[in-house]
Amino acid sequence: MPVSTDQSVRPAELDTVFAWVQDSIAPRMRAAVERLPASIRGVVGYHFGWFDESGRPANGAAGKLLRPALTLLCAQAVGAGADSAVGAAVAIELVHNFSLLHDDVMDGDATRRHRPAVWSMYGVPAAILAGDALLALAVEVLAEAPGTAPPAVTGSVSTVCAVLRELIDGQCRDIAFEGRDDVTVEECLAMAGGKTAPLLRCACELGAVHGGGTPARVAALKRFGWHLGVGFQLVDDLLGIWGDPRLTGKPALADLRAGKKSAPVVAALAAGGQASRYLAELYLRPDPLDEDELVTVARLVEQAGGRDWARAEADRQAQAALTHLSTADPHPSVRHTLADLTYLVTHRDH
Amino acid sequence: MPVSTDQSVRPAELDTVFAWVQDSIAPRMRAAVERLPASIRGVVGYHFGWFDESGRPANGAAGKLLRPALTLLCAQAVGAGADSAVGAAVAIELVHNFSLLHDDVMDGDATRRHRPAVWSMYGVPAAILAGDALLALAVEVLAEAPGTAPPAVTGSVSTVCAVLRELIDGQCRDIAFEGRDDVTVEECLAMAGGKTAPLLRCACELGAVHGGGTPARVAALKRFGWHLGVGFQLVDDLLGIWGDPRLTGKPALADLRAGKKSAPVVAALAAGGQASRYLAELYLRPDPLDEDELVTVARLVEQAGGRDWARAEADRQAQAALTHLSTADPHPSVRHTLADLTYLVTHRDH
Repeated sequence: MPVSTDQSVRPAELDTVFAWVQDSIAPRMRAAVERLPASIRGVVGYHFGWFDESGRPANGAAGKLLRPALTLLCAQAVGAGADSAVGAAVAIELVHNFSLLHDDVMDGDATRRHRPAVWSMYGVPAAILAGDALLALAVEVLAEAPGTAPPAVTGSVSTVCAVLRELIDGQCRDIAFEGRDDVTVEECLAMAGGKTAPLLRCACELGAVHGGGTPARVAALKRFGWHLGVGFQLVDDLLGIWGDPRLTGKPALADLRAGKKSAPVVAALAAGGQASRYLAELYLRPDPLDEDELVTVARLVEQAGGRDWARAEADRQAQAALTHLSTADPHPSVRHTLADLTYLVTHRDH
Repeated sequence: MPVSTDQSVRPAELDTVFAWVQDSIAPRMRAAVERLPASIRGVVGYHFGWFDESGRPANGAAGKLLRPALTLLCAQAVGAGADSAVGAAVAIELVHNFSLLHDDVMDGDATRRHRPAVWSMYGVPAAILAGDALLALAVEVLAEAPGTAPPAVTGSVSTVCAVLRELIDGQCRDIAFEGRDDVTVEECLAMAGGKTAPLLRCACELGAVHGGGTPARVAALKRFGWHLGVGFQLVDDLLGIWGDPRLTGKPALADLRAGKKSAPVVAALAAGGQASRYLAELYLRPDPLDEDELVTVARLVEQAGGRDWARAEADRQAQAALTHLSTADPHPSVRHTLADLTYLVTHRDH
């Protein structure tokens, strides 16, 4: 039976799923971070929203836990208990946060989860070190996952290391794009893939592998995770221009302010026509844009069709994800949850 | 028979050893870096001195390869062939270069191996990404070391991750020290240990473990590596003030320019007496120092006994290293080489 989301989205049920993921991995996350030296633990705890900047306990938003959710659900999708993949889920969430810490430095993003980003609160060196610490910790958690056979452990470590190379490549291209005027829509989609999709694919892969899935099911869930990731990034790009700052925790028009060549912008630049030409004139000139000009740029991206294109492409990616999810023949207990999650991830902009 | 260096230093022989280490690991280093995405490979190759800034082949100094030398020699010390530890040696050298790339960003050191550091040539984002890439690559090389049993692989990965935590802690303290006026000599020695010694200890440990050494021999070689590392850092601190720029590849008085609380400075500040008080007045004031004042600071550190103290402490660390080397009862073929190496490392300032 093909998996479909049309009338089946149950956000309340997904809230329950995220609460369960939180309960499953939070103690392991805390225990892992406890192993870090005191000199960096406070910075990492601040990043996760566990402490405020003076080290007092806080209850900040620690992010959606989408990646560990995928890991646990994919273990269940191949018929295993979520327990089998808790270590992998923690490792994936640590890798994700490593990349957030370093990316915020590189992109100059001063706000993360409605609070000052680590680099703007503690300085660039602290943010670099905190990221390094989380990367090492992720590998350590993976290498020590209890109950996992050593060959599976080394396999998982290799998988994560290969994914890190893809993430680094994606970030390199993203930075290079900001200085280029000739980025194609294809390059942009590949980049959107390269920055986000590898980790979502990896989250699904590790869950399926640790759950003991067959190679065919692992492969199908990897493809599911990949397309979900590309869809996720496209929606992120939409939110980076038109997202409500109260929900995104970032300033309005953030990506345009940073001069990003995100998917809607590149599609609009490639579209041709008057709006596209005006956009190129304004956005590609070397001087920084004032607030009025940023609003004009956003309107031109929309008029040239960049917003609609990104929205439609996100839908196509969601559909591809669902097709591969069907192929994986997920266990009935999580089939609808994974489909609902796909809908949620690719429609966060509504 | 206790290991001793007194009349036995044969620099020519050590040159042969370093050439052999270079030949043993260079192809594996190149092959590992080849796996990186093209977007970051050039930056990494520049850092290693393989390419110039335009990507043309170059023959820059790639560093002394001290850490992989220790790994290979410690495998031989426990009676194995160096082959058994080549993967570990490559991983250690990659971890070392990861930390150089990130430390240069954090410390604002613009020169590395007589050339502009990566961050000053390609920008901070490229240096962060290149460091991240080498860290992931190190773990990958370790996880895939051919001919190693999976449990040994996961053990090595855990060892390296634990060492990374120590390095991060050392760097955190180093940065914090620059803003503090009350660093004790003990804290400073612990920091000198924390920044450098863990990786040298780890280099020895992985060599001994991959060579199949007994736990007692592994433990003795770890202690050897630790004291060698503390001695190394003390000499580095001496070179950071009095080193010849033509040899160190760094500007004269580099550590004083950066306001570092390195071991000779802290010892001089703690010594009491007139020179110590003058030093505190000059070095601990908030304003930056001019060239004449930097020269005065160096003279005051020397007059207050900081230089002699660091020199004597480096000798004590070398002696402790040799004692543990004796305990390890190294294979005769490398016994003298390891002792000579100890002498070389702790007397680079002469």
